[in-house]
Amino acid sequence: MRTQVGIVGAGPAGLLLSHLLARRGVESVVLEARSREYVEKRVRAGVLEHPTVELLREVGVGERMDREGMPHEGISLRFDGEQHRIDLADLTGRGIVVYGQQEVVKDLIARRLADGGDVRFDVSGVRLDGVTDDPVISFDGGELRCDVVVGADGFHGVSRAAVPHTPYDRQYPFAWLGILAKAAPTHHELVYANHANGFALYSMRSPEVTRLYLQVPPDTNADDWSEARVWDELHERLGTEINEGPLLEKSVTGMRSFVTEPMRHGKLFLAGDAAHIVPPTGAKGMNLAIADVRVLADALDLLFTGGDESGVDAYSDVCLRRVWRAEHFSWWMTSMLHTNPDADAFDRRLQLSQLRQTVGSRAAATTLAENYVGLPHGSV
Amino acid sequence: MRTQVGIVGAGPAGLLLSHLLARRGVESVVLEARSREYVEKRVRAGVLEHPTVELLREVGVGERMDREGMPHEGISLRFDGEQHRIDLADLTGRGIVVYGQQEVVKDLIARRLADGGDVRFDVSGVRLDGVTDDPVISFDGGELRCDVVVGADGFHGVSRAAVPHTPYDRQYPFAWLGILAKAAPTHHELVYANHANGFALYSMRSPEVTRLYLQVPPDTNADDWSEARVWDELHERLGTEINEGPLLEKSVTGMRSFVTEPMRHGKLFLAGDAAHIVPPTGAKGMNLAIADVRVLADALDLLFTGGDESGVDAYSDVCLRRVWRAEHFSWWMTSMLHTNPDADAFDRRLQLSQLRQTVGSRAAATTLAENYVGLPHGSV
Repeated sequence: MRTQVGIVGAGPAGLLLSHLLARRGVESVVLEARSREYVEKRVRAGVLEHPTVELLREVGVGERMDREGMPHEGISLRFDGEQHRIDLADLTGRGIVVYGQQEVVKDLIARRLADGGDVRFDVSGVRLDGVTDDPVISFDGGELRCDVVVGADGFHGVSRAAVPHTPYDRQYPFAWLGILAKAAPTHHELVYANHANGFALYSMRSPEVTRLYLQVPPDTNADDWSEARVWDELHERLGTEINEGPLLEKSVTGMRSFVTEPMRHGKLFLAGDAAHIVPPTGAKGMNLAIADVRVLADALDLLFTGGDESGVDAYSDVCLRRVWRAEHFSWWMTSMLHTNPDADAFDRRLQLSQLRQTVGSRAAATTLAENYVGLPHGSV
Repeated sequence: MRTQVGIVGAGPAGLLLSHLLARRGVESVVLEARSREYVEKRVRAGVLEHPTVELLREVGVGERMDREGMPHEGISLRFDGEQHRIDLADLTGRGIVVYGQQEVVKDLIARRLADGGDVRFDVSGVRLDGVTDDPVISFDGGELRCDVVVGADGFHGVSRAAVPHTPYDRQYPFAWLGILAKAAPTHHELVYANHANGFALYSMRSPEVTRLYLQVPPDTNADDWSEARVWDELHERLGTEINEGPLLEKSVTGMRSFVTEPMRHGKLFLAGDAAHIVPPTGAKGMNLAIADVRVLADALDLLFTGGDESGVDAYSDVCLRRVWRAEHFSWWMTSMLHTNPDADAFDRRLQLSQLRQTVGSRAAATTLAENYVGLPHGSV
C-alpha cells in the first residue's frame, strides 16, 4: 500500500490535516490505534479559539459547530472573594466557542468518510522506519509506504521517538480533578477561581451538563473524592451559585508542559500533542494542534505541487514560535491561578498583584484576552 | 524640643514629606545621620516616573529638573541579537525624566532651608521610643518629642525595627556592577539588554557621562573587573555602539525585593526604602518613596487639621497596593531580562517567549509602558 502522506493518529490534528490535504489534491491515509467509537467519545478540551473556529468554517467542517457550539464573549477570574469579568469581545473584537474536542473529531471523521477519505481504526503495532529517506509505516497485518509521514499520535504515541530532539519539560506540583456533572449550568461563561484551597474552574458543556475542575495534589486517587466532598469544595472555591447533580465522570489529569525541538526529522513531521503539550489552564492544546496542521498542509502542498521545499524546511521553526507563545501563556495562566505548595509568602503576594493587574489594567486584560481568543494564524 | 512630625532621614522621602507638610502648615523636623555633602553626592536612581515629575512640578520643586533633566519618550529592549524600541509616549501619552536622585535631594534641601525648614545633618545615635502613644526621638546630644514619627531612614535605618511586621523577602542570585563613565552617550534612551552572559543596561546621565550596569554574581568584588574587562563585556552584551571613557565609579549592588507589612505602628509611619525595596530593574525605588509620602502628607494634614484619623488608618493599605504593583513589575522586569543561573532550558524558552510578546504585542508593550512611566497616584 502506498500514499503521499501517511498520518499516524485520528485526533483533531491528523483528521484535519487529512481533510486540508484532500482539498489540495494531496492523498493521505490516517491510521488510528483506537476504535472509532473510542475516539468519538474521548472527552478532552472544549474551548475553540477564534482562529480555530474560522479555519473549521473556512474549510467546510464548521456547520454543526455553528449550530451546536456555544459562543462565549467573556470569561471571569475570581480571587480574593470577588469575581471580575474579562470582556473578550470588547477587548479583542473576538470570542471563543465551547464545543467539545470529541465533537470536532466526529465532524472530521464523518467528513473524511463522506469524501472517500481513507481513515483506518483499530490499527495496532504501528512502527516507523526509513523516515529520513523512504518512510514505511508498518503495522499488524500490513505496511504503508509514503512520501511523508506525519506523527499526530499524541503525547504517548510512537512517532516522537523517531525524531532526534531536545525535550523541554516542566511538571507542575498539582493536578486537576475533572468532573462532568448532570447539572444545569448557572453561568454561561467560564469562571477561573484562585482560592487558598486551590484552583477551581467552572464551565458548561450543554444546557444539562456542567464541566468542573478542582486543583488536587498530583498523586490524588479520584476515588478519594466523594460526591459530597467534590461539591463542598466546588462551592467553597467558586464562591458562586452552582447546581449540583450526578457525576457522569471523575478523573485526575496531571499538569505538564512539554516541547520537542525540532518538530521534524527528514520526512517525518510531528503535529499536535505528539510534539508538545500544555497544561489545560489556557485551553490551548487542541488549538495548537490545529495551528500546526494548517502550516503543515500549506507546506506539503508546496512540496507536492511544485517540489518547493521551503515550507517543509520552515515548518518546525514556524510552529515553534506559536507553540512557545502558547506554552508561555499556559504556564502564566497556570501560575497566576493555582495555589503552588512550593510558593513562599512573597510569591503569593506577587500572584495577587498579578491578578489585580490583569483585571485592573485594560492593557493587561487585553494581553490575556488576545492570547485566550487566539492570536491570528501566521501572526506569531 | 518638640514638633508635630519628626522625620528620620533626609532622602527624597523625608525631605519631600517635610516640604509637603510645610505647604499645609504642618511643622516638621528632619534628622539625618549623614552630612549634607554626603547625601547630596550619593548616586542612586536616575529615572523619575511621570507622576513623580508632575508632583515635583506641582509643589514647586521642579524648576531645575525641568531645566536640566532629560525627558525620554522610549526605552529599548535588546535580546536575541536585535533591538526593539518601546515607544512610551505613543503607548501611554507619557514619558519619564532622567534626573539623578541626588539632584532631587539637592533641590529639596535647598528649598526646605530657603523656606526656613528644620533639617539637621550629622545627627548620630537616633533611637525611637514611645511610638504607640507619645513618641520621642532621642539622639546624641538631644531629643525630639513629636505627635507623629516618620521613619524615612532607608533599608538600613533604625525605624523599621520599631514596627512589628511581617517581612516579605526575595534575594536574587545575581547583582549589578554599576559603572559611571566619563564618555559621551551614544544613545539618548535607556537600553535594557538580555544576553547569555547576563543582563546589561545602558543609560546616559549627562552629555559627558554614561551610566552602565552589568549583571554579575552576587559575591563579585568590583576590583576583579578591570576597565578592559568592563568595556569588553559591555560591548558584547549591548551589541550596540558605545563610547569608552575613564571610569568615575564602579560598585556592586545586590538585587533584593523586600516589603514590610504593615507600614505603620501607632504613631510611627514608615516611608520609602525603610518599608520596601525593589531590584533596580524597573527604576521604581525613589518613585515609590515619593508616592508613599504624597499619601502620608494628605493623611497627616487630615489628622492635624481636623483630627480625622481616616487617612492615617488607611495609609499602610493604600501604599501597599502600589508597593506590590511595583514589586511585581520590578520582579517581572528582573526575571525577563536577567540570566538566571538557576533557570532550566524550559525557563529560558519561556523568557524568550515573554520578551517576544512584550515587543510584539501592543497590549503587552502597553502593560510594560504604563508601569514604567508610572501608574497615576491614587489609581492603584
